[in-house]
Amino acid sequence: MAIRPQMVLFGDSITEQSFRPGGWGAALADSYSRKADIVVRGYGGYNTRWALFLLHQIFPLSGPTPPVAVTIFFGANDAVLLGRQSEKQHVPLNEYKDNLRKMISHLKEMSPNMVVVLIAPPPVDEDGREQYAKSLYGEKARKLPERTNEVTGTYARQCVELAEEMQIPCIDTWSVMQQTEGWQKSFLRDGLHLTEEGNGVVHSEVVRALNGAGLAAEEMQLDFPHHSAIDGAHPEIAFQSQGCSSSGDIDAFCPENASDHI
Amino acid sequence: MAIRPQMVLFGDSITEQSFRPGGWGAALADSYSRKADIVVRGYGGYNTRWALFLLHQIFPLSGPTPPVAVTIFFGANDAVLLGRQSEKQHVPLNEYKDNLRKMISHLKEMSPNMVVVLIAPPPVDEDGREQYAKSLYGEKARKLPERTNEVTGTYARQCVELAEEMQIPCIDTWSVMQQTEGWQKSFLRDGLHLTEEGNGVVHSEVVRALNGAGLAAEEMQLDFPHHSAIDGAHPEIAFQSQGCSSSGDIDAFCPENASDHI
Repeated sequence: MAIRPQMVLFGDSITEQSFRPGGWGAALADSYSRKADIVVRGYGGYNTRWALFLLHQIFPLSGPTPPVAVTIFFGANDAVLLGRQSEKQHVPLNEYKDNLRKMISHLKEMSPNMVVVLIAPPPVDEDGREQYAKSLYGEKARKLPERTNEVTGTYARQCVELAEEMQIPCIDTWSVMQQTEGWQKSFLRDGLHLTEEGNGVVHSEVVRALNGAGLAAEEMQLDFPHHSAIDGAHPEIAFQSQGCSSSGDIDAFCPENASDHI
Repeated sequence: MAIRPQMVLFGDSITEQSFRPGGWGAALADSYSRKADIVVRGYGGYNTRWALFLLHQIFPLSGPTPPVAVTIFFGANDAVLLGRQSEKQHVPLNEYKDNLRKMISHLKEMSPNMVVVLIAPPPVDEDGREQYAKSLYGEKARKLPERTNEVTGTYARQCVELAEEMQIPCIDTWSVMQQTEGWQKSFLRDGLHLTEEGNGVVHSEVVRALNGAGLAAEEMQLDFPHHSAIDGAHPEIAFQSQGCSSSGDIDAFCPENASDHI
């Protein structure tokens, strides 16, 4: 299955849920159809501290072909406030930045040419969070927000700074989304997770970042011939021209041999 | 990246497009979130004859861990009529069945325990095809349909028969869809390709087939601990219990070592 380059989406629930209807991960898989495999490694509720436990498992240094690109999308949980409902997810600002640096360094050690795209957390709609808590717990819902937009913004800034420092592409989701009036409800469905429109923003930004890093889908090779290039009477020609005679894998690829095998 | 089992979707455009909004492939990726990777190998316009050229490339006998499941979803192009616009895609009925048999045999040779799900082509809405052709070519559009529902039905029956013969699960999309009144427009967007509702039907049927074959997502292991199982003060405990001490891969997994490495 090692035919196509892989792009891995590493992150928290906003990555884990990216294959839900309208999700940015599924859209990316469609954008890179027959060009690259999009592999989702999203872990709902995780912060960067917990994600470090997975790093070597998901990205082993001695593994097979490393991915051509990885998105790192954490921060929404690191930015949870101390003393509030979800405080166990909190990671101090400096440690957050250090953890991200460790991830990037590890990935660059795995493959110096890997395109690593850092994605800052989206803004927080505190009213949306409150409504969501009430819809779940009614009047028992927590009175104090577990996240504020302002604090999440400080985490987003660390992302942006780190990306500049390490000279890698960065998507400042927190800032980009707030440029659109009504971002609170149009981009966030519960004050934190993305609506289809919000997913669209992330998808566009990721495509733009990958394009800028030399991984534009249009310039990547299609795996196997387009059907219009196949001659109905002599289909073998199109497949031979894909490297049958030179690949050394003649048994699998040449029609005259393939017919013996399949 | 070999942490999760893989499920491969092998087919024509109806598989290639399965990560578009509302697509059955993306929905499957979401259904198996953190349980299995859904790998799409769809090739628009391909029939089973052309697909055989790819078989050993996509599914090498000597490759790494084989997929746990593969869906084979061809027939919509094999069933194109001779003497019509797209006749180069036509594959005779008997050859179609033989080609599918070769695919299934190859996959079972690759891994006898692999769950192979055969998917019959969807029905054809001839009126929908004609409208679509007119929308593209106006009055120059072909007058005769390149596919008929009746002929596609004969291909679907070959699928069903072959699956019984080889004792593998089969989804008779052609019959299932026609049980719903108004299937022509509700399940097919151009008389051939799936609407979101049509994608929903395929998704449900694939999930049902996988459940029936012992691959229910609910019974598969989550990769890495759920966040609710992580102790904020001692996160290492949750990760150790995932096999740190027994995996032999201590460097990567144990926090005390991990901190040296990441």
